[in-house]
Amino acid sequence: MTVLETPVAIVGLGKIAVDQHLPSIATSPAFHLGAVVSRHASMEGIPSYKTLGEMLANEPDVPAVALCVPPQVRFDLAYEALCAGRHVLLEKPPGASLSEVEALCDLAEANGCVLFATWHSRFAKGVAKAKEWLAARDIGKVKITWREDVRHWHPGQQWIWQPGGLGVFDPGINALSILTEILPSPVHMTAAELEFPENRDTPIAARLSMRGAGNLIVEADFDWRQTGPQTWNIEVETDHGVLRLTGGGAHLEVDGRNMTDAEALQSEYDGIYSRFAELLRESRSEVDNSPLRHVADAFMLGKRRVAAPFND
Amino acid sequence: MTVLETPVAIVGLGKIAVDQHLPSIATSPAFHLGAVVSRHASMEGIPSYKTLGEMLANEPDVPAVALCVPPQVRFDLAYEALCAGRHVLLEKPPGASLSEVEALCDLAEANGCVLFATWHSRFAKGVAKAKEWLAARDIGKVKITWREDVRHWHPGQQWIWQPGGLGVFDPGINALSILTEILPSPVHMTAAELEFPENRDTPIAARLSMRGAGNLIVEADFDWRQTGPQTWNIEVETDHGVLRLTGGGAHLEVDGRNMTDAEALQSEYDGIYSRFAELLRESRSEVDNSPLRHVADAFMLGKRRVAAPFND
Repeated sequence: MTVLETPVAIVGLGKIAVDQHLPSIATSPAFHLGAVVSRHASMEGIPSYKTLGEMLANEPDVPAVALCVPPQVRFDLAYEALCAGRHVLLEKPPGASLSEVEALCDLAEANGCVLFATWHSRFAKGVAKAKEWLAARDIGKVKITWREDVRHWHPGQQWIWQPGGLGVFDPGINALSILTEILPSPVHMTAAELEFPENRDTPIAARLSMRGAGNLIVEADFDWRQTGPQTWNIEVETDHGVLRLTGGGAHLEVDGRNMTDAEALQSEYDGIYSRFAELLRESRSEVDNSPLRHVADAFMLGKRRVAAPFND
Repeated sequence: MTVLETPVAIVGLGKIAVDQHLPSIATSPAFHLGAVVSRHASMEGIPSYKTLGEMLANEPDVPAVALCVPPQVRFDLAYEALCAGRHVLLEKPPGASLSEVEALCDLAEANGCVLFATWHSRFAKGVAKAKEWLAARDIGKVKITWREDVRHWHPGQQWIWQPGGLGVFDPGINALSILTEILPSPVHMTAAELEFPENRDTPIAARLSMRGAGNLIVEADFDWRQTGPQTWNIEVETDHGVLRLTGGGAHLEVDGRNMTDAEALQSEYDGIYSRFAELLRESRSEVDNSPLRHVADAFMLGKRRVAAPFND
């Protein structure tokens, strides 16, 4: 039996679309690029539209839409696409509020559409194996260090500093998406400290404390002011040794022994599109809001500090 | 058949316990006060303990516990009570984080206990009738005005200004608990502006914008700096007239016509204990986290402003 490739439309031709989505769609056995929607850009040989509305009206045979726009404008587009009966893939975070994501879930279900709230870091090479290994362990302390240079990774992007843009939680939520994936039981925020640059609406650094079952504690250090080497590490102390995920989940070792899955897909986004194809085949949505919920909790119960102004 | 009164223990003998819980338990046909837990206070003729642990150890026949402590310490006490197999009533808000409330739900279910996350304003006299009346209407604009004098209502209380104390959302969440109860469909936060006194960790004022199905919009104005007359109003424009809840939900009118339910219980807390009795009879938990979720969303996507220092 030949499985036909599903046409998918990309909405928002920014950095993440160009760097990740387009290459993964190009090599995906399940999808091909059916259309693009962008106010400013277009792609040769691909039907290109200025608005989602025009695309939906002109491309009835594109059943799936991937939203690669900033979180502040994601809801309206997702709503429009779901109302038009299209399946929707959401970049992370799935929205600017928890409640809007719940509304999208209800709408997707009512309209018989698949909604996939992606967390790309969960598809990093070391994550599935880390989850498997931790399933049977007693876990003590988890230490997350997520320190990167915002100027390098978000050059000139203003939305990250605007309300709803999450600031340093934009990368930090990747760590939380791994944490919530690999831990065998849930944790909750007990304290947080957020540093807001005096001239910005979102934090540039955050320190978090969480707790879970038994003696499980999590300490997280997110910082966007790291120049030089970049750090995306999660260290988990257990009764059977220390597990370390480094490189944003790409490398896994236990007590210094390499456990990275050599067979795993090389690209996180290849994993995302492979899962999306599976969800479409099974007509099943996948929306886990827990990483965003932890971020909201950190904002709600966090202590605010004013930091030096940040200028691009 | 004679229904025996259930002994309930009060944990935390602060203002809300003394003003509301004790009087409602005293007149409840379903409950009587079985014990109190307080670090500093005790009650004549009632077994009094300094810690919840002592109470649980010494009072195996007190099956229910009402937690009237600040939200920052609620989780540990609820956890301890549920682990001891007791049913738990939580004052609002049910916790300092959304995730901890989810953890308590799971624990209550696993231990066969009833967990009741109360929202006292939902038991105000006008609320049930407002919900009934709105069920069949097209709703346009909702305007919430919740302005009170923090010095009058929270004299000397420090926890409201500490991280997790929610600040002006401590009263404002009452409005959100009514809103989420009376609206026939959900809304989500689209913008928020929070004013933090320069010397405090929680906001003293907030302006919120929310949206819902169709043309439904909500504008909320929470302020803790109101002296003179106090305002707790919700106004709902519909295709069949304007509904107004005033006095924190106590009075209901539509287009100026009084619709308050004359038969309704006079006290919100009488309503709470009546519902708790019903939940115990049916072995059923009731936990609606949506008011707290809206607050978390407001913190997450809100714009922060610095306001004048606040001193008690």
